[in-house]
Parts: sequence; C-alpha cells; structure tokens
Amino acid sequence: MKKFQKEFEVHYYEVDFYQELTPLALLNFLEETAIAHSEAVGYGVTRLKEKGYGWVLSQWQIEMDQYPHYGEKVKIQTWPSHFQRFYGDREFLVLNSQDKVIARASSLWIFLNLEKRRPTRIPQEVSDAYHIFPDKALSFPFPELKMSQTREKKRSKFMIRRSDIDTNDHVNNAKYIEWVLETIPEEVYRTYRISSLEVVYKKESTYGQMIQSVTEEQQRVDQEAHYVHQILERDGEEEVALALAQTRWSKR
Amino acid sequence: MKKFQKEFEVHYYEVDFYQELTPLALLNFLEETAIAHSEAVGYGVTRLKEKGYGWVLSQWQIEMDQYPHYGEKVKIQTWPSHFQRFYGDREFLVLNSQDKVIARASSLWIFLNLEKRRPTRIPQEVSDAYHIFPDKALSFPFPELKMSQTREKKRSKFMIRRSDIDTNDHVNNAKYIEWVLETIPEEVYRTYRISSLEVVYKKESTYGQMIQSVTEEQQRVDQEAHYVHQILERDGEEEVALALAQTRWSKR
Repeated sequence: MKKFQKEFEVHYYEVDFYQELTPLALLNFLEETAIAHSEAVGYGVTRLKEKGYGWVLSQWQIEMDQYPHYGEKVKIQTWPSHFQRFYGDREFLVLNSQDKVIARASSLWIFLNLEKRRPTRIPQEVSDAYHIFPDKALSFPFPELKMSQTREKKRSKFMIRRSDIDTNDHVNNAKYIEWVLETIPEEVYRTYRISSLEVVYKKESTYGQMIQSVTEEQQRVDQEAHYVHQILERDGEEEVALALAQTRWSKR
Repeated sequence: MKKFQKEFEVHYYEVDFYQELTPLALLNFLEETAIAHSEAVGYGVTRLKEKGYGWVLSQWQIEMDQYPHYGEKVKIQTWPSHFQRFYGDREFLVLNSQDKVIARASSLWIFLNLEKRRPTRIPQEVSDAYHIFPDKALSFPFPELKMSQTREKKRSKFMIRRSDIDTNDHVNNAKYIEWVLETIPEEVYRTYRISSLEVVYKKESTYGQMIQSVTEEQQRVDQEAHYVHQILERDGEEEVALALAQTRWSKR
C-alpha cells in the first residue's frame, strides 16, 4: 500500500514577487490533494454529498522549510493517520523536484451531516475505504493561540466577496489566510517568509458578511517574527471568532 | 513549426458550484500559457525585466462554448498573430479532453519600457524569437463598450487587497473580472454562465487603493443577458476608468 501522491506545477499566478509559491496557493495544493485522494478511494465530494455527508477542515499545522519557484513541479503526499468517531487526521509532505521534503503539514477534519450541519460518526464503509498510516508529518502538539490583553493590535475589515466563496457556498478555508496576510506589516511581508502556520476554524462565514482580521505582533527579533491572528465577525454586540491563527516568519 | 500548447488540470479551487471552471481561473490559464510561451522562446518575464522591458495586457476578447469540469484536463494553444511597433496580438484556443475547441480568445499586448512605464518599439530580437501565424482565433471586431446615461447602474466598492497584487506590484488583470462578477445580480450569477467577455485595460492600480465596479444591465431576454462594466478609481474630484468590460450570459 502506497501513500497517495499528486503532482502540481507552480504557475505564475501562484507566486509572489520573489517568484515563490504563495502560502495561499500552498493551502490550495494541500486541500486539492486531500480531495483527490478521497475521489480516488471512491468517496469524493460529490458522492459524499449525495449521501448527505461532507468533510470540513478544523485545523491546519504547516511547516515550510523551502518554497518552490515558478515553473517548478512539486509532489504532495498525503495519508490519513487516525480516524475517531467524527474526526479524521490527515498528514502531508511536500516534495520538491529533487524529491526533497520541503514542507510538512498535519490537519484535522470533521465529518458532517450536511443537512443538520452537525458532526456525525464516520460510516464504516467510508473509513474502510482508506488505508491508515499511523505516522505523523509533524510531531509537536497544536499550540494555544492566545492574544494578550495589552499589546497593540492591527485591524483590517473585509466585505466577503463572491470570489471568496467556494463550491459549498461558504468562505473557502484558504481565504482566511489571505485576510491574515493583509495585516502583516509591509516590511515583514516584503522581507520575511512564513516558516510555520497554524489555523483553527471555529465557524463558517458566507457571502456579503463583514469580517475583521486582527493581528498582534508577539515578537520580532533578529531573523524571526511571530504573530497571533483572529478572524472575527460581529454578531449583534459581540465579536465572534471565525478562526484563530498563528504565523512565524523568518528573514529571507 | 507548431503552435505552442500547454496542459492544465482543473482543480477544485478553480471551479464554481456547478463544478465548472470559473472565468477567473480561465483568464489565469490563458495568461499562464502566454507567459510559458515567452519563456519557451527565451524571452520570459525575468529575462525581459533584466533588459528593462515587459508586456502588459491591453485587451481581452473571449468566447466560451463550454466550460471544463473539475478534474478535467484542458489544453491551451496560443500563437502571436501580428506584431506592430509596440503592439502584439496573441490568439488562444481552449481544447477539452476530447480535443474539441470549447473556447477562443484574442488579446492585445503592449511592449513597455519598464523604467519610463511607456510603450516602446518591440526589439527585432524579441519579435524574431516567435513564429507568427496570421490566423485569428476570433474574427469579429472589438466592440465599443458604452454605458447609457439613463439606465440604472449597480455599484460596488472594493479596497484593493494584497492578494489582488501580482508579481509586478500592480493589480493582476484577472482581478478586474472578479470585481465585475461581484456586481452581477444573484439570479443571473447562479443560473447563467458567461458566453463572451471583453475587457480593455486603461490604467494600472495598486495596493490600498479604493476602486468601484459599476455595471449596467443592457438586456435580459429569454436565455440571454448582457452587461456593460466600468472599473473606476476616484482621482480627486474625477472618476477615472481603470478598465471597461462587457459580459454576455446564457442560461444554463
């Protein structure tokens, strides 16, 4: 039994001004590989939807050693490492054109009853369709994503665009990262690159909503910078978290 | 001498809720193929930039008969049909997995002196690098894109996001189409698809600017709808057009 693998070419519209793959495009590649794997074992998005089920992403943990460049071909390897009740853990390795591992990711998915929008037990036939490899791509635990009460925060507001919406009629997971990136100071955005990224998704959001991206700089020393992020919606008087995230950056 | 061709796989993050390739993703595929062609003949973006040159897109004309679906592989064929002073015409055919032509496009590009940001004569060595095929992908002339004084218009405002910016530090061409799509009535957006699209680019825009997308419905009869669009920026008291566009839609 081999781990599932998919190849991607890095396009010009997927790179930044250094001609390196953007974090947004990387997330798209990872999710695409997970979807393709499920298609390959016979439980793709459409088949699951017909049965009233779907997977939603709950957590990302990503570590990037190197970013592939424009025109480069990368391979993404993925495997489920654990299924439990309505939870599924899925791992990823990103290999560059020399077959060197340049990134690692772990993700946590929730199996949903689409009609009730509630987690539901993964049916035996679904979990049986996959081969489980118990090894993890990343070994450290998911961090606590906490903001201080006192430090200054940078805030940006966004109106959710149609182009932010995916085939499920809610905001695509990768888009939250787009909003996170908007709040990074220009100097860091230009001269650093993300070395690690963690996200927890808390609540869906939909077309036309106004959301707020809040960022706190935790540390900027020498070659490293560290930020904690919240994506918020206003629900009446209260601010409700749609997602929490953390990014670590290293100088280029 | 063969026409240049490039293959693309339609990814899940490039399709709409009907699992059909989005117009935005189609534009990305077309531009990517043009860039890859220039790379292949030795005058890619980086090499040109080193010499102080660059191509900018001036016009698009696109006709779509069919949209490819998630997972499908499409081939895009491209060729320059004419070079004159600082203008280059480039044609495109989109072929589906059965090698049937499902879309046609013509585009007009301007050769720039990057430092002066002004059109400049295409050097002999650059035009000599390509083989010219004089046939056009689309035979009809570029339409006049005119709004009435009287009809009601739909307006949406956008703050330019970092993610709207491309490797040249200005707003990516395809993004204007994203803003155009935001102003289409929900019913049309959901139950029609674009059958043809024309865009003229007038002026660059950059990060942090506020822009406005204005749309006028010209006609909606039976199975067809027709819109004219303007993307505007406010420059002091005046509204300046960044781009003009037209979309025609047919019922699904």
